[in-house]
Amino acid sequence: MRTYFDCIPCFVRQALDAARLATDDERIHEQVMRQVLELAAELDMSRSPPVMGQQIHRLIRNLVGQDDPYREIKRRFNNLALKLYPELRKQIVSSNSRLETAIRLAIAGNIIDFGVNGSVNESDLNKAISESLTADFDSMQLQSFQDAIEQAEEILYLADNAGEIVFDRLLIEQIPIEKVTVVVKGSPVINDATMEDAVVAGLPQIVEVIDNGSDAPGTILESCSPVFRSRFSTADLAIAKGQGNYETLSDVNKDIFFILRAKCPVIARHLGCEIGSMILTKNKVGTYNE
Amino acid sequence: MRTYFDCIPCFVRQALDAARLATDDERIHEQVMRQVLELAAELDMSRSPPVMGQQIHRLIRNLVGQDDPYREIKRRFNNLALKLYPELRKQIVSSNSRLETAIRLAIAGNIIDFGVNGSVNESDLNKAISESLTADFDSMQLQSFQDAIEQAEEILYLADNAGEIVFDRLLIEQIPIEKVTVVVKGSPVINDATMEDAVVAGLPQIVEVIDNGSDAPGTILESCSPVFRSRFSTADLAIAKGQGNYETLSDVNKDIFFILRAKCPVIARHLGCEIGSMILTKNKVGTYNE
Repeated sequence: MRTYFDCIPCFVRQALDAARLATDDERIHEQVMRQVLELAAELDMSRSPPVMGQQIHRLIRNLVGQDDPYREIKRRFNNLALKLYPELRKQIVSSNSRLETAIRLAIAGNIIDFGVNGSVNESDLNKAISESLTADFDSMQLQSFQDAIEQAEEILYLADNAGEIVFDRLLIEQIPIEKVTVVVKGSPVINDATMEDAVVAGLPQIVEVIDNGSDAPGTILESCSPVFRSRFSTADLAIAKGQGNYETLSDVNKDIFFILRAKCPVIARHLGCEIGSMILTKNKVGTYNE
Repeated sequence: MRTYFDCIPCFVRQALDAARLATDDERIHEQVMRQVLELAAELDMSRSPPVMGQQIHRLIRNLVGQDDPYREIKRRFNNLALKLYPELRKQIVSSNSRLETAIRLAIAGNIIDFGVNGSVNESDLNKAISESLTADFDSMQLQSFQDAIEQAEEILYLADNAGEIVFDRLLIEQIPIEKVTVVVKGSPVINDATMEDAVVAGLPQIVEVIDNGSDAPGTILESCSPVFRSRFSTADLAIAKGQGNYETLSDVNKDIFFILRAKCPVIARHLGCEIGSMILTKNKVGTYNE
């Protein structure tokens, strides 16, 4: 997906939110704003929004002198999600369709996205969980997803954010686990999950976990390590979680299912859905099952 | 009032809204965005937000090659307000406090602000009118305003937007009309009222109307004509309508009453009120009655 004009004011607002979260120093807020505006003035609109996100958050980390301004937020949402995990797991096990319930909850976890909303809290998460269990959901896509995971031999699960990764675990447990490799970011960006978060979520005990070698808030293939790119190219199927992965992979010629909540108007328009919709959708340019 | 960091993403969004309203040509949208981002990167934050607004809208008019992209919007809201005028005037005349009711309605008219919200419609206006008649309102300030207009000999009423200027007429009719000079913008910017709108509102038949010689969406004194500046300096009292006039005159050492609806978080914080509050307030740096 390319960058749209509507993304630009949103980048500027996100940069200000992120700068404020990282430091109280207004001189740094000003430096961040001026440099982001200069970057945005020269932006290549044909590239996906996370290309700009990657630059913004590198800039903030450099100016603030912190490698991970979202560390405490990630810790907090991992703990919150881990507390909910046993009860949510019971709900899945006792439901009519375990896979569907697990997907619904994985989408609920996608609310924990500090790229889109810098003030997500516990009550937003609880609301997202209860909504996700009853909201409209495309069961045609569910059958197609189920077929795809049955037929695939090697599945990459591209995780999105910390906290959310515990909800991803609930879904991963409902798919043939021996086929799955979970992929996290190579180094911190916003509240995206890294290896540390996968470990906290207990994932390495049940599946292979690798990192993609990149600090982009999405999967920009040319920014990823050769090891990850090789795994991505050989895998039969990718499950890509969240907006950043959708934005960066929607035009990639590969069998990919995207699982996300459409949280911004640009994404919603691109997907042809309402803002807030729960999305399980197959990559249009993929060839799986066709 | 200076420009705050939070104004920057809002400038960028406003520029995009305004470019889209002026033309469907996406190449021009892109030129507007890139040039506004460059201007914003170099912005002098000590100046008021309308300094940037003036530059943005000059840029859009130049790139689009139209001197008044909001002409149709202004016509529409003038007509709408003129249709409401007779009934609103009756409400004022039959109310317990004519001045208070007229101020409340003048504040309702301030919703017609395409700088803040590019999609104001008739139902927003009707809602603003009914809310304005019952919402909280500081009657201490009302007494002080009443004293000030009684004691003043020469009052400048700085109008804000087209359509809204009909609501201003309702208020102007309730103050000693022989003391009042209404001031409109020197040339078009956003939907700000110019002489054409004052004429449509019937103001020249009841009061003196002058223009300020400027195309800023507010009253940037150094951008105004020498004639206006001289009138501003000799008047005893100014009544300044809307956010743009508040932003540009809040630090001016002059007796000014501001009448507005606080529509953005930055203005609300500066005034110490909630977003949406109806404001009648005296300039803190003024010396009147002190």
